[in-house]
Amino acid sequence: MREEELDRLTIAGAGRAIRAGTLSPVALTEATLSRIERLQPRLGAFITVTADLARRQALDAEAEIAAGRWRGPLHGVPISLKDLYCTRGVRTTAGSTILADHVPDFDAPAAARLRDAGTVLVGKTNMHEWACGVTNDNPFFGRCHNPWRHGHIPGGSSGGSAAAVATRQGLASLGSDTGGSIRIPAHMCGLVGHKPTYGLVPRFGVFPESWSFDHAGPIALTAEDAAIVLDAIAGPDPRDPSCLTGRPPRTRRTIGRGVRGVKVGVPTDVYFDECHPEVAAAVRAAIDVFARLGAEPVEVSIPEARHGLDLCLVIAWAEAAHFHRRWLQERPGDYGPDLVDHLASASAYTAVDYLQAQQVRARVRRAYRRLFETVDLLLSPTAPLPATPHGVEAVEIDGKPASVLGLAAGLTAVANATGEPACSVPCGFTSDGLPIGLMIHGPHLADPLVLRAAHAYERSQNWRRRRPPVS
Amino acid sequence: MREEELDRLTIAGAGRAIRAGTLSPVALTEATLSRIERLQPRLGAFITVTADLARRQALDAEAEIAAGRWRGPLHGVPISLKDLYCTRGVRTTAGSTILADHVPDFDAPAAARLRDAGTVLVGKTNMHEWACGVTNDNPFFGRCHNPWRHGHIPGGSSGGSAAAVATRQGLASLGSDTGGSIRIPAHMCGLVGHKPTYGLVPRFGVFPESWSFDHAGPIALTAEDAAIVLDAIAGPDPRDPSCLTGRPPRTRRTIGRGVRGVKVGVPTDVYFDECHPEVAAAVRAAIDVFARLGAEPVEVSIPEARHGLDLCLVIAWAEAAHFHRRWLQERPGDYGPDLVDHLASASAYTAVDYLQAQQVRARVRRAYRRLFETVDLLLSPTAPLPATPHGVEAVEIDGKPASVLGLAAGLTAVANATGEPACSVPCGFTSDGLPIGLMIHGPHLADPLVLRAAHAYERSQNWRRRRPPVS
Repeated sequence: MREEELDRLTIAGAGRAIRAGTLSPVALTEATLSRIERLQPRLGAFITVTADLARRQALDAEAEIAAGRWRGPLHGVPISLKDLYCTRGVRTTAGSTILADHVPDFDAPAAARLRDAGTVLVGKTNMHEWACGVTNDNPFFGRCHNPWRHGHIPGGSSGGSAAAVATRQGLASLGSDTGGSIRIPAHMCGLVGHKPTYGLVPRFGVFPESWSFDHAGPIALTAEDAAIVLDAIAGPDPRDPSCLTGRPPRTRRTIGRGVRGVKVGVPTDVYFDECHPEVAAAVRAAIDVFARLGAEPVEVSIPEARHGLDLCLVIAWAEAAHFHRRWLQERPGDYGPDLVDHLASASAYTAVDYLQAQQVRARVRRAYRRLFETVDLLLSPTAPLPATPHGVEAVEIDGKPASVLGLAAGLTAVANATGEPACSVPCGFTSDGLPIGLMIHGPHLADPLVLRAAHAYERSQNWRRRRPPVS
Repeated sequence: MREEELDRLTIAGAGRAIRAGTLSPVALTEATLSRIERLQPRLGAFITVTADLARRQALDAEAEIAAGRWRGPLHGVPISLKDLYCTRGVRTTAGSTILADHVPDFDAPAAARLRDAGTVLVGKTNMHEWACGVTNDNPFFGRCHNPWRHGHIPGGSSGGSAAAVATRQGLASLGSDTGGSIRIPAHMCGLVGHKPTYGLVPRFGVFPESWSFDHAGPIALTAEDAAIVLDAIAGPDPRDPSCLTGRPPRTRRTIGRGVRGVKVGVPTDVYFDECHPEVAAAVRAAIDVFARLGAEPVEVSIPEARHGLDLCLVIAWAEAAHFHRRWLQERPGDYGPDLVDHLASASAYTAVDYLQAQQVRARVRRAYRRLFETVDLLLSPTAPLPATPHGVEAVEIDGKPASVLGLAAGLTAVANATGEPACSVPCGFTSDGLPIGLMIHGPHLADPLVLRAAHAYERSQNWRRRRPPVS
C-alpha cells in the first residue's frame, strides 16, 4: 500500500475494505507508521508513537479476520488516543512533565473498548499541558502545528489528535472536551469533533481537568466515522459514577436519515457577535444548505449562551485547582508558566464564587432545556475565528484586544455547562485557506440526531476532497 | 373541651375522634389557643400566633366534616410550622429581623399540602436565626425554652416546633434539618423527629440554610403521627428541582408491622464516643428492646461517621454564605453576632475547600451505601448529650471543652451529607429528667422502615405517659 492511498480512506470505507479482504490491516498500519515517521518532526502531533504495539495489533487483527472472526468496522483500523487516556504498558503523560514516566497498569474503559473493537493504536497524541488551553504549545513535549498552516495552532486541548487525524496518522482519535477541547481543534483542522452528552462515555482513567465539565469523545474524518467510534465507546462503566445508566443510543444506525422536517435554531444573539466575517458567512451558507435539505430554520434568542465561558473559567478551573492542589504546592516548577498562574488564580476562588457560578449554570441549563422544546438543534459557528499563529495570545476584535483562549472557547463552553451533545463539522474555508467549523448542538442524549445532521450536511458538500498542505 | 384533655391526644387519636364526631375541631382549636396564650410568655415557642386564621380553618373543617366530606386523619387537627415555611398572608421571618415584615403571597408546597389535608394552622414557630444553630436563643424573637427544664435549650434549629409539640400547642409541626435541626430538638424535647430522604419533601418556599443539606420534615408526638404528616407532605413539586420524581413511599401503611427479622446495626465506633453515660445506657437499653422485639442487632464499624459534622460545617455553611452574600455585605448589623462571624468565616472558604469536602462526602455516601447492604437500619444516640442550659456554649467532655453546637450535631449531620432518612425517637430520661433520643437511620427511601421501627419501639415503652413539667 502506498502512503498516498491513505488520503482516500475513512473508517467506514477502510472497514468495508478490510472486511472484504481488499485492504490489509498490516499494510494500512505500515503506511500509517511511515506517514507518522515522515510528519512527526514537522507537525509534532504525537507525544508517544506506539509502532511496535501497532504492528502486533495489526498482525492479530489480520489473522483474526482471515480466520473469519471480524469484530466490526473498527477491526484493524489505526487510531490514536489523546495522551490523557490511561493505556496499560504505554506511558500516559497528560502533557505534563510530572507524568513523563507514568506507565499505567490498566486501560481507561474508553481505550479498552476501542482495543476490544480491534483497533490498532499508533500513538498517544500531543495535547495542551493538562488539557488546560487551546494552543497546544506544550512546554515539555513541543509545539503541535496545524496541518493547514505550519506555525499556526491546531486548536486544543486535543490539538495533537486533530493534527493526526487531519493527516491520516490514524483514521480517528479520542479527545476530551472541557470547554471545547474536541470541537475547537476539529474546527481549526477541518474535522468532525463530537462532544457527547455528559455521562455517555466513561471518563475513568482519563486524567481530568474538571469532573463536571469534562467529556470524552471522538475526533474523526466524517460524521459517520465519529458515530462509529462513539458507538464503540459509549455506555456505562461502574468505575465512573457520573456515567448515565441504561443502554446508550445507537448513533450510527440513524446516519443517512437526513434532516427533513428537523427544526434548526439559528441564534439571533451572542453566537454571531464578534465573529470573523468569513466564518459568519460560511456558517450562514451552511444553514442555507440545511434549509435546502428540508430542515426548518427558526430564529431563536438564547442570551444565556454568553455565560458559557465564565462558567467554565470559574467551575472547571476551580475543579482543576482542586485536582492539582498537592502538586501545585509541592512542584509548582513542573507546570508551564501560564498554567501555574491560571491554577493559582483558580485556587483563590471562594466557595461562594463557585456556588454562584453553579447557580448561574442551573439557570443556563433550564434556558437550553426550554430552547430545545421549540427546536431540535441549534446551529452556530464553532468558534468566531479560525486558527491563529502560535505565540499570539490576543487578537483585535472591533479594535479591542481579545484573548485567543476566550474567543476560541467562547461559544463551545456552554454545552459543557449544560452537558448537552455538540459537534463541529467542517463548513468551508477562509479566503486564505483555514478551515471553518459549523457547530451542531442538541438536547440531552440527542447524539444520534446531532451526528445525523452533520452527516446530511457533509454529504451535500465536498470539503473532504481538499487535503491539508502538510500531509 | 378542657385544656388538660389535650395532653392525652395524638394526631392518630384526634383524627379518629374528629371523624367519629366525638371531638370538635373548633373545641380542639380553642383549647390549643388557650394553651398557647398561657404558655407563650413562658416558653416562647412561637414567633407568630395565627389565632384568627386557626379559628376560621377550624370552623371550615367542622362544617365540611359535618357535611360528610372528611379529608383524612389531619382534618381539623391543629399544627404549627417552623417560621421558615412561606405562608400566604402570614409573615414568615426565618427567625431574622431582615424578614420581620415579610408576608409571602404564596404557600410553600409542604405547607399547602398540610392546609389541603384540612389542618388548622395555629402559628409559626420560633427557630434559631436563619436555622443556623441549635440553641434557639433568637436575638430578635426571644429565647425558646425547653418544656422539660425552663432555662435549658429546646435544641434547634427547629426548637420552637419541638417546644410547641411537646406541650400540645398544636399536635405536630414541620421543621427543617440541615445538620440535625429536626432530630436534635426532638431528642431534647422527648419527641419523634424525622428527617426524610433528601428530595422526598419539596423545599420550595422553605428559606434555605444549604440547598444540598436541607431537608423538610415533621416533628410529632409519635412515630405514627410523624408518618401521617410525612405522607401528607411527601411527593414531587416542579418548583423544587431537587425533588425525587415518582410516587413517594406510603409510610403510615407499614406502621404496626414490627421489626421481627430486621437487621439493626450497632456502631462500634464514633457514635458512642464522647457520649454522656446516661445517654449511652438509655440507647443500649433501647437496642436490647429491639432484640426482644425480634430484630437482629449486628455490630458494625462505620468510621466515616466522624466526617458528618465537618462536611456540614464546610458544605452547608459555604452554601449558607452564598445565600446570604448580599445581605452580609449590605446589612451585617442585621445578623446576630455569632451568626455574622460564622457566615464571614464561611464566606472565606475556597472553592478548593468546598470541592475537597464534596469529595469526602462522596466517599462517606459510598460507605453508608455499603453499610446498608449488610444491615437494614443503624441505631445510635441522636446526640451524645441532653439539653444544656441557655447561655452555655461549651461543655467539658473527658476534661476537654467541646462546643455544644459541635456535640449536638456531631452524630446527626452525616445523614444530611448522605441524604438518607433518620429519625429520633424518645428512649428515656437522664436521672435529672431530661429526655434522651434514639436515632434510627436507614438507607435511601427507607422512610417507612425507619418510622415502622420507631413505632415498634415506642409501642413497647411508656414515655408518652410522662408530660413535661411546663405544660
